Amino acid sequence: MGVVQFLFGAVALVLHDDTIAEPFLIPGGITVLAAGAVHLVLRTRIHQISYRDALVFATLTWVLTGVLGALPIHLIAGISYTDAVFESISALTTTGATVLTGLDSMPGTFLMYRQFLQWMGGLGVVIFVVAVLPMLNVGGMRLLKAETSGPVKDDKLSPRVSHAAHSLWFVYIVITGACALAFYLGGMSVFDAVAHSFTAVSTGGFSTHDASMGYFNSHLLLNIANVFMLLGAISFGLHYRILLTGDVARYWKDEETRVFLLTVAIISLVLALYLFGCGRYDSFWESLSFATFHLVSFITSTGFGDEDLSSWPLVAPVGLIIAGYLGGCAGSTAGGSKFIRNIIAFKTVRSDAQRILHPAAVKEIRFQRQIVTPDIRHSVMAFFSFVAGSTLVLTMALVYTGLDLLSAFSAVAACLNVLGPGLGQVGSNFQVVTDTGIWILSAAMILGRLEYFTVLALFFPMFWRY
Amino acid sequence: MGVVQFLFGAVALVLHDDTIAEPFLIPGGITVLAAGAVHLVLRTRIHQISYRDALVFATLTWVLTGVLGALPIHLIAGISYTDAVFESISALTTTGATVLTGLDSMPGTFLMYRQFLQWMGGLGVVIFVVAVLPMLNVGGMRLLKAETSGPVKDDKLSPRVSHAAHSLWFVYIVITGACALAFYLGGMSVFDAVAHSFTAVSTGGFSTHDASMGYFNSHLLLNIANVFMLLGAISFGLHYRILLTGDVARYWKDEETRVFLLTVAIISLVLALYLFGCGRYDSFWESLSFATFHLVSFITSTGFGDEDLSSWPLVAPVGLIIAGYLGGCAGSTAGGSKFIRNIIAFKTVRSDAQRILHPAAVKEIRFQRQIVTPDIRHSVMAFFSFVAGSTLVLTMALVYTGLDLLSAFSAVAACLNVLGPGLGQVGSNFQVVTDTGIWILSAAMILGRLEYFTVLALFFPMFWRY
Ligand SMILES: [K+]
Ligand SMILES: [K+]
Repeated sequence: MGVVQFLFGAVALVLHDDTIAEPFLIPGGITVLAAGAVHLVLRTRIHQISYRDALVFATLTWVLTGVLGALPIHLIAGISYTDAVFESISALTTTGATVLTGLDSMPGTFLMYRQFLQWMGGLGVVIFVVAVLPMLNVGGMRLLKAETSGPVKDDKLSPRVSHAAHSLWFVYIVITGACALAFYLGGMSVFDAVAHSFTAVSTGGFSTHDASMGYFNSHLLLNIANVFMLLGAISFGLHYRILLTGDVARYWKDEETRVFLLTVAIISLVLALYLFGCGRYDSFWESLSFATFHLVSFITSTGFGDEDLSSWPLVAPVGLIIAGYLGGCAGSTAGGSKFIRNIIAFKTVRSDAQRILHPAAVKEIRFQRQIVTPDIRHSVMAFFSFVAGSTLVLTMALVYTGLDLLSAFSAVAACLNVLGPGLGQVGSNFQVVTDTGIWILSAAMILGRLEYFTVLALFFPMFWRY
Repeated sequence: MGVVQFLFGAVALVLHDDTIAEPFLIPGGITVLAAGAVHLVLRTRIHQISYRDALVFATLTWVLTGVLGALPIHLIAGISYTDAVFESISALTTTGATVLTGLDSMPGTFLMYRQFLQWMGGLGVVIFVVAVLPMLNVGGMRLLKAETSGPVKDDKLSPRVSHAAHSLWFVYIVITGACALAFYLGGMSVFDAVAHSFTAVSTGGFSTHDASMGYFNSHLLLNIANVFMLLGAISFGLHYRILLTGDVARYWKDEETRVFLLTVAIISLVLALYLFGCGRYDSFWESLSFATFHLVSFITSTGFGDEDLSSWPLVAPVGLIIAGYLGGCAGSTAGGSKFIRNIIAFKTVRSDAQRILHPAAVKEIRFQRQIVTPDIRHSVMAFFSFVAGSTLVLTMALVYTGLDLLSAFSAVAACLNVLGPGLGQVGSNFQVVTDTGIWILSAAMILGRLEYFTVLALFFPMFWRY
């Protein structure tokens, strides 16, 4: 059931827009038919949904909705279908990398369609993480299951998950509404406020302006965006519990959220001091505001832009791209590796190092006061191996298509971590990438969004064996 | 005892040359005094050598001999002391990165001094790996101890190690002699043959010519170099056993050596096909010869050059730099991560992935038919975390000093893996790097040469606590 709902949640998004204009109608019709067919197939087999089905459906969902969602983009923006698929997958995976320019002169409906795709994609991922990942223990995600206070406790896709999905919908809408209101009160038009609330809470990062948040030229709006990007990068299960109980201190009691927020604060401060120190800004507060906004934008994998990063010393944007690998919290819309894994990996490596120094001083690793089993440690370390391996292989592939190393690496990092903006040749958009490169990056976004293993497993012979 | 011998082996190298010219005499004298002092200190404390002492001495040995070995370079080549220390550490760690140009017009004695430093450094590392690493289980190196047929079985620095060190000296000299003879018969002058045998067997990569092996313009010499670089990158313990028994098939029976040689063959072939395919060479054999030579030169971390890599499509040199992370076999003079770790990491990740897919199908990992304990698996994974972490941090630091990403990454990879040549701004030499950058890279060479943990441990508070 969870898979079906999740599938429909993601597929229905095209449906939602198909009454607006002709280019939406035809693909909309096709999508409805396709969704109906999938629904029928699932109905008859619903009682047999297995581990393997869950993986295949999750991957297919993103691939198919990406391909179908591309039709209106192809028809309206007049770009090649390859580019349209990239744009569509970029939206659905909440990456926000674009091959388009001249956004400001495009029709509002079309722009809102892009923003809405991101919003739906963000919700889709939250449900995916809560409903599918714990069952699979992908990258140690069985840990999430262990949170007894959370809305999800079960091993199987059960009515509980269906209930959880509804709760998450609810929280997601509440936070988005609050964000739109805050943007509006902060000075945006209604259209822009709604459009940017869709992509702040989903950490998607698409904008209705080429200059992104820089268009508004307002530190107040940057700070509002910070708040909602951070909320989007924190577990929506946690939001839900706090909304129910009113106990805001739980954000701090939650180890993952605490470490995440502390990391954001520390890196922002260091970056602000650095930029101020090298004279990039006249006042420290201006430096702090821009540093915090960009760090939050990158670490939450939103990818909103403001100041032209290419005017910063190269070490700063490269550092931001690498910060994108950290990501937000599990169960949020953020990309990257997620802090739960960062924390476990850090503790694992520290414990291994201590063990080498003093074999007698063996201590178990704890996360959120619970012992981390070897099983989960291994999954987490395997996850980071996939991250490193994918980065290497895909960067090489893009260098092969003709990009320089900085552009290739930043494009791969931007897509794997569903971050969005790259550096160098792909600094403002991805038009320079060849068709081969565009397909590679489209695959990278799905790979990163579905946490690597969900997709990679399909290529293991062992997966198909039983 | 092992540590003392190893210390003296490395320190005495300056001594060896100090009768040749005045710039050698004074530093030579200082070095002898310093070595004598160290020897005295060690004498009185020899019975108490602990785990901690071993780590400190190993690190200090490379740092001190690097600093002392730099004096003649500073005096003769007329470069700054910072650059001279870099050059000296580059030699002793068998990195072979250079800040010098115009080698062809420099005095022969000086050139031979550089080559000889590399040769001694190579031997020093072999003894370090055999004598010190297994005791520490750095990056899973306790595995080496498990080889019951090897010359080293003990936990402690014992007379056995001292005996082993002598055996290794012997093999090292025999192979170097064979290499010099082969180079001479292949057409080099006696001087060049000896000089290049020093840096082929030590996988150091210094040359007496700016054009490196390209100076000789001979495919025969490239192939001879291939053979001896590969021998230098295979365990000298294994060489010794094969020399004693005459059982050459043992190279193939040894899992690490087998996988290493197979990997070299496969990547060389792929690279040759690629270069031939994009029309870089007219004949496939020429393509295969250059591809094999460069792959062997990079994967064994020798760093001999021939063709100008910048004329290849960027993906090829970047691939070679990354191949340098693989490295040779443990107990050889090669750098990189070593195939023993590559194999265990690969099997660990594969096993973890299988465990996620089918929790029931748990199998233990085996290397060379022996079960790999969790302890060793964890050390190996921690090792790769250090590799990835060090690469990230140091690359950022070099970007900070002003290099572009390609130059910074390739310089760090070249130094951490004691490989030598970089790409981009550091394509032919490291003169463009600032003094800060030079010190960072000097530290990176020692970090990589001593397998990260030996050095990093010194920065753990826990290390100093007991
Ligand atoms: K994004
Ligand atoms: K080298």
